Amino acid sequence: MKRCFFSLYNDVHFSGSYFRNCFVYSGLFLVLFVFVLKAEAQNKSNFVDFVNPFIGTQRMGHTFPGATVPFGMVQLSPDTDSVSYEKAGAYNPDVYAYCAGYQYDDPTIVGFSHTHFSGTGHSDLGDILIMPVSGQLKLNPGTADNPESGYRSRFSHEEETAVPNYYQVKLQDYNINAELTTSTRVGFHRYSFEDSLQNYLVLDLIHGIYNYDDKNVWTFVRFENDTLITGFRQTSGWARTRTVYFAIVLSSPLVNYGHEKYDSSIYRGFYRKFDETLNFPEIAGRKIRMWLQPDLSDNKELLVKVGLSSVSAKAALNNIQIEVPHWDFDRVVREGQQRWDDELSKIQVETMSEDDQVVFYTALYHSFLSPITYMDVDGRYRGLDQEIHHAEGFTNYTIFSLWDTYRALHPLFNLVQADRSHDMAESMLAHFDQSVHPMLPVWSHYANENWCMIGYHSVSVLVDAIAKGTFKGDIQRALNAAVQTARYPLYDGLKYYMQLGFVPEDKSGNAVSKTLEYAYDDWCIAQIAFYAGDTNLKMDFESRALNYQHQFNPESGFMQARLSDGSFKWPFDPYDTHGQGFIEGNAWNYGFYVPHQIPEMIALMGGKSVVEAKLDSLFSLELSDEHIAKNEDITRDGIMGMYVHGNEPGHHIPYLFNYTDSPDKTQQKVRMIMENMYANAPDGLCGNDDCGQMSAWYIFSALGFYPVCPGSDEYVIGSPSVKSATIKLGNGKTLKILTKNQAKKHYYLKEVRLNGLTVQDFKLSHKTLMQGGILEFEMQEFPVN
Amino acid sequence: MKRCFFSLYNDVHFSGSYFRNCFVYSGLFLVLFVFVLKAEAQNKSNFVDFVNPFIGTQRMGHTFPGATVPFGMVQLSPDTDSVSYEKAGAYNPDVYAYCAGYQYDDPTIVGFSHTHFSGTGHSDLGDILIMPVSGQLKLNPGTADNPESGYRSRFSHEEETAVPNYYQVKLQDYNINAELTTSTRVGFHRYSFEDSLQNYLVLDLIHGIYNYDDKNVWTFVRFENDTLITGFRQTSGWARTRTVYFAIVLSSPLVNYGHEKYDSSIYRGFYRKFDETLNFPEIAGRKIRMWLQPDLSDNKELLVKVGLSSVSAKAALNNIQIEVPHWDFDRVVREGQQRWDDELSKIQVETMSEDDQVVFYTALYHSFLSPITYMDVDGRYRGLDQEIHHAEGFTNYTIFSLWDTYRALHPLFNLVQADRSHDMAESMLAHFDQSVHPMLPVWSHYANENWCMIGYHSVSVLVDAIAKGTFKGDIQRALNAAVQTARYPLYDGLKYYMQLGFVPEDKSGNAVSKTLEYAYDDWCIAQIAFYAGDTNLKMDFESRALNYQHQFNPESGFMQARLSDGSFKWPFDPYDTHGQGFIEGNAWNYGFYVPHQIPEMIALMGGKSVVEAKLDSLFSLELSDEHIAKNEDITRDGIMGMYVHGNEPGHHIPYLFNYTDSPDKTQQKVRMIMENMYANAPDGLCGNDDCGQMSAWYIFSALGFYPVCPGSDEYVIGSPSVKSATIKLGNGKTLKILTKNQAKKHYYLKEVRLNGLTVQDFKLSHKTLMQGGILEFEMQEFPVN
Repeated sequence: MKRCFFSLYNDVHFSGSYFRNCFVYSGLFLVLFVFVLKAEAQNKSNFVDFVNPFIGTQRMGHTFPGATVPFGMVQLSPDTDSVSYEKAGAYNPDVYAYCAGYQYDDPTIVGFSHTHFSGTGHSDLGDILIMPVSGQLKLNPGTADNPESGYRSRFSHEEETAVPNYYQVKLQDYNINAELTTSTRVGFHRYSFEDSLQNYLVLDLIHGIYNYDDKNVWTFVRFENDTLITGFRQTSGWARTRTVYFAIVLSSPLVNYGHEKYDSSIYRGFYRKFDETLNFPEIAGRKIRMWLQPDLSDNKELLVKVGLSSVSAKAALNNIQIEVPHWDFDRVVREGQQRWDDELSKIQVETMSEDDQVVFYTALYHSFLSPITYMDVDGRYRGLDQEIHHAEGFTNYTIFSLWDTYRALHPLFNLVQADRSHDMAESMLAHFDQSVHPMLPVWSHYANENWCMIGYHSVSVLVDAIAKGTFKGDIQRALNAAVQTARYPLYDGLKYYMQLGFVPEDKSGNAVSKTLEYAYDDWCIAQIAFYAGDTNLKMDFESRALNYQHQFNPESGFMQARLSDGSFKWPFDPYDTHGQGFIEGNAWNYGFYVPHQIPEMIALMGGKSVVEAKLDSLFSLELSDEHIAKNEDITRDGIMGMYVHGNEPGHHIPYLFNYTDSPDKTQQKVRMIMENMYANAPDGLCGNDDCGQMSAWYIFSALGFYPVCPGSDEYVIGSPSVKSATIKLGNGKTLKILTKNQAKKHYYLKEVRLNGLTVQDFKLSHKTLMQGGILEFEMQEFPVN
Repeated sequence: MKRCFFSLYNDVHFSGSYFRNCFVYSGLFLVLFVFVLKAEAQNKSNFVDFVNPFIGTQRMGHTFPGATVPFGMVQLSPDTDSVSYEKAGAYNPDVYAYCAGYQYDDPTIVGFSHTHFSGTGHSDLGDILIMPVSGQLKLNPGTADNPESGYRSRFSHEEETAVPNYYQVKLQDYNINAELTTSTRVGFHRYSFEDSLQNYLVLDLIHGIYNYDDKNVWTFVRFENDTLITGFRQTSGWARTRTVYFAIVLSSPLVNYGHEKYDSSIYRGFYRKFDETLNFPEIAGRKIRMWLQPDLSDNKELLVKVGLSSVSAKAALNNIQIEVPHWDFDRVVREGQQRWDDELSKIQVETMSEDDQVVFYTALYHSFLSPITYMDVDGRYRGLDQEIHHAEGFTNYTIFSLWDTYRALHPLFNLVQADRSHDMAESMLAHFDQSVHPMLPVWSHYANENWCMIGYHSVSVLVDAIAKGTFKGDIQRALNAAVQTARYPLYDGLKYYMQLGFVPEDKSGNAVSKTLEYAYDDWCIAQIAFYAGDTNLKMDFESRALNYQHQFNPESGFMQARLSDGSFKWPFDPYDTHGQGFIEGNAWNYGFYVPHQIPEMIALMGGKSVVEAKLDSLFSLELSDEHIAKNEDITRDGIMGMYVHGNEPGHHIPYLFNYTDSPDKTQQKVRMIMENMYANAPDGLCGNDDCGQMSAWYIFSALGFYPVCPGSDEYVIGSPSVKSATIKLGNGKTLKILTKNQAKKHYYLKEVRLNGLTVQDFKLSHKTLMQGGILEFEMQEFPVN
């Protein structure tokens, strides 16, 4: 167990204005250490105290510990390394590990950048890295092995704090205390230097996440005056054409500044006229690192505000002027934490342990990081067509990791974030309007489509919002967008799917996964057509929704790849995750993907007992090490037999026993998964959090129910891990969840009652829950049957 | 003599709707061949018939023969080669020759691009090259020696036509007739293919002028539908950060299209999902060449409209929709020619020969090509700060080659383009507002400052417009911009100039040229202060305006470089154009640069007779071949003794004899220069036209007077070459110029009368001329004295 350390700076800056936590993970012990300085009543913050932003920062969680407000555009966080892609190779773990910029085991911090994905398995971003330094100026980052070779600094978790919207670390090599907070569009830095001598900020405009030599497309910087720097940074990474505009405002004027260019510039007009490298206010090039020397003669503390925008540098400055027109760092911390408290208090839980409470609220925190707000304070944003758009009547969002998040994250939003859910649907429809194909988003971020993963699951998000009443927009418009998307023949085997009723593996890889997901998505479109009153389209897409049947091979008993001549593909290895028509899975754990017609799937597969036996095998047969090695994103910790919780295609599988005669097995599995695969620890996520999908799975499961088929209004009951919960439904009503006889090993349900009436069939409708009341789970140690 | 050839296509397309000329230069003969098909009364075009756009396209004129309207944003012209910078070196003639994209002696055409400088000595632009081809598709341009190796085609001047706003050429390798015309912001192409088979457009988005490997920063293309392509092209050339947005509309739908990328792209998301190369509508990368296959089954003619914008692709499309909402190519030709006729008819001249008439109107045409309109139809444009601005109450212009054009081009605008002159002044002030330094433009194009050449001659342009009453804006604002510019210490030796009263050669090269020009510019600022009523600033800058005196060395008798210790720099070679403190000149031909205090300069140099003798020497002493070789931009044809007409610093020198006792020598020199250094021939310009400065010199000189000191309201009389002229002064009045006894060798003035009164001292005031009336020159064969 380690001491929770607060530096002198903390004592100075944090004049008892709020609670804070310090999470330290040490060896096998996990300690929640609440360090209460003093609470002033008006700033009392309850729920942020239960968030540990370090969860998922070790190994494969790919979360970041830095500061952000809920769904904030700026997510300001330390980056512990910047492994260049070309050196490390595309999916080399050395690059893959840095999807969120931070790895808990790293000994050094490179600096603080303003944009991060939370939990993704591919990456980008890491814009506008700032690093405060003292002494001899170095403009290269150096290496973790030899930090003195560059501007990076050693740090220790003992001198590091992370709570919602506040991050602090002592940079040991410079004895600088660094603190970060944010508003939606502004990153706010507070750097406390040891003395007034030789202090600089390094502004590294080459740095990025998933960086490689060609990523920096263009950089443009202007020193507008001695406290204001503006510009833009244009990259081509996962987002192919992406421009981030920025404005940087300093609390102390610059006495000197300069830069180095790491690329050639042929026309030398500037060089003939000016010494561009020192105090020249106009810089442009591909690869630029800069240094700023503020006048700290009267003040060893430097405050830096960084506003971002997708529209222009002027708009980025306007974002600062509107959101943070003052220099009160602590106020920005407080206001952001108040917003977190408002969001987190929407689900108030009593848990069986303090750790469970931290796991729960951190999962809720991680669920509320993305999609991010993607527009300026005036509603403008750069769209997919690179034009400036104005979000009329909605907040525009980006970072849609839809293959992951349609499963539980968006349904969670439909439960407790109704307005945002509507706005996200509108954002997706705006994306469609801007798309040249045109298609709804597949995996989109910063007005770019990166086409990651498969399916067109926007339609699931749309129909879930329609079915649950959070989407208040034009259903006909949503239907049109969904239908055009589903009929776009250039997309990923769709042409063959429309011709043959399945995707042939010889024409388009991962074909079984695609057919199964397209079939579900088509059911979603049929549902949208139902809500829009379009019978013809409903029938058309209901027919397409049956296409999963074409992948089932009675001979093998599995969903199995087919070729374009109609034959099944042999040899067939249901354990293999490669070459068998599946992506991030195999026939065992991907083959149950028919969420919209589970009874029909069970019948197809031979009936309940056959499927139950198969599910039993799935959870017990051990994958070989060879098969594990070939599976992305998972570790031995994250699997149960062949069930891989780190990958999303199985997230509904633990709930499938409800459709057999053994719902108790669902109850046991979901509790086991919650117990074993989530923890209050830096490695407390067993795989990528995937923009909150892993966390949203936990939230639902901990509350006792799960949206097995998003787009239907049905939840399937599992086994709650909380002792009680109060969910503010946003419609003025409250759903209270109570457990009776809850205990660590009491996985099993004796009875479930909603407002006093026994719930049959382990199903709950969203509509009924939204009327509020009391949902009671009576727990027991052994199954009923 | 060669036959003037019109192809069948011309006969088809040009159904007698207007006059046209065909200029053919053959060996030593120069023939003006007016080919009148038939004139319809309402389209009668007089003055365009006297323009030969080929003048200056051979050797060093650096003009282009393509289509444009007056001051048009789109200047659509054939590029005959695309020599890459890194292969050829920075100032290698092979690159330098292609400043305007076209060299008359070249045997092949690479394609047609939409932006060109006219007459510059450095370059950029050449955006959005389109080349129609037939047969086997090739995406590389090939070489002039081996055109079959690429998409370029052979052509012949016999099958080529260039008149204002219309260019035509037969592409021999494909038997395609290509025709070009424009509106202000739209390029309009008409391609007539031989048959319907295998016809393509190559859209080369790598191509550019002064191209080099790193110039293409980013390219973004969308196929919005089968007749609309949008996107942008971002380059870093002479303009460091430049983005051109485009929209391309086709008259026939595409059946297929594709592209090749010539750069790497690390993230392969797109490639996994799509065959990006064929019919995939979303393309981005650094280096892209595309091909388009239109459906020409019913029509062998393809029309293409290309709109440009600095704001967005949508704005580029809007420019097309507002300016050319139809497909009537001939109408666009006619409308543009009508605009040319309106502009050219502002000065109606009777000349001594047909060639003189062509030289005159081509000079006027070249004077009205730049600065170009730089805003969309809605008034928006991208500014120096990369923000979108709206031109409130003025037309925004760009391409300010000010070191060249303040001398005669802007004064010419103040004579016959009053409204544009005001708008150009407003454009320069907007540039100042957007400048981070802040400075008025030095050499600016496309919202970039390329810092080419020396001085801050914007102040001359401003004060000339103020003095002559064309600037209707805020004089105080102009004064503030001028003063801040002149006090910006980072700029080009200005810090030393302000400290020492001269630029020391050991601190900043070309120091004498800088001191002399700063001193003149400071006089301009003093004049602005006078008009603004600011006595203190007037005195301050009047004092700075004397700084030229510090460069004169009585010991050498020349303006001579000084060092920062105050001593003159020795050894001193007044013939040397390098290392002596001059740029594009030497002490002989740059040393007379004191336009604002010529009598004082003469006194300083020892009086009239000394200066006259020096001027005599200047025009008679021959530069050695070695000195010529070191001098940029000139050829033996373009010099008289040491007077180098191809470079601007001497443009006022022929008029300096007026300040001695031998004004007849001015009369003789200017006529000799007009006779020998301008011709109706492709090589009819003896040096770079420099955005119209060389041409504007000709216009003034041909009319008989010249603005030796822009910013004063005084013209100095030379010797008119016209027989008569009628100048529409824009204020409803007309100035009629008549010559009596005019003849080829009658250089000398017997008398000059303005409205019957004899003009003394060979000076005319602008104010008097603007009252209109009759200016009579009585010519004679021999000088008076």
